[in-house]
Amino acid sequence: MVISQEKLQGILSKIKSQEGVRGVVVTTLEGLPLSSDLDPDTTENVAAIITSLVGKALDAVRELREGSLSFLTLDTTKGQINIAPEVNEGLILVVLKNTE
Amino acid sequence: MVISQEKLQGILSKIKSQEGVRGVVVTTLEGLPLSSDLDPDTTENVAAIITSLVGKALDAVRELREGSLSFLTLDTTKGQINIAPEVNEGLILVVLKNTE
Repeated sequence: MVISQEKLQGILSKIKSQEGVRGVVVTTLEGLPLSSDLDPDTTENVAAIITSLVGKALDAVRELREGSLSFLTLDTTKGQINIAPEVNEGLILVVLKNTE
Repeated sequence: MVISQEKLQGILSKIKSQEGVRGVVVTTLEGLPLSSDLDPDTTENVAAIITSLVGKALDAVRELREGSLSFLTLDTTKGQINIAPEVNEGLILVVLKNTE
């Protein structure tokens, strides 16, 4: 992992202070959670499911020759899931938000 | 399909007139293209790849109990892919945009 633990914590604090944010999970590209403010079960679920979805999205963008994926957003009836795949750092950042 | 061909064409014209839009594809949930302004090869590719990604995203949202998926957005280095899964109508609307 290229990013320092200190830098990561700084980024996370900034995100968590935003309105409507109810959870932030950082996982490796393999779905291993590195940091989370959700309970352990939810964290494991989010890490596993989102990592698998990101893999599929990375494949899709490559196959469609759309360059590289910088951000993936899911709008749901319960809010928004923002996903930033930081492939170079070997991390996926997942932010769960409530509908405003 | 619940939506009429006429209504669909109206929606498509409106989307295509927006700035930066370089392609609009409508497929069934099974990946069969119904309408497209891209060449046949690209259309088939987009329909197959995006349908598969939407299936995965619908699974993810259900498993995470986030309600239902209303919109999926991929930000890439080449632009944006906006995906509206209209599950009730049996359609997926895909809009390819250039970076502004």
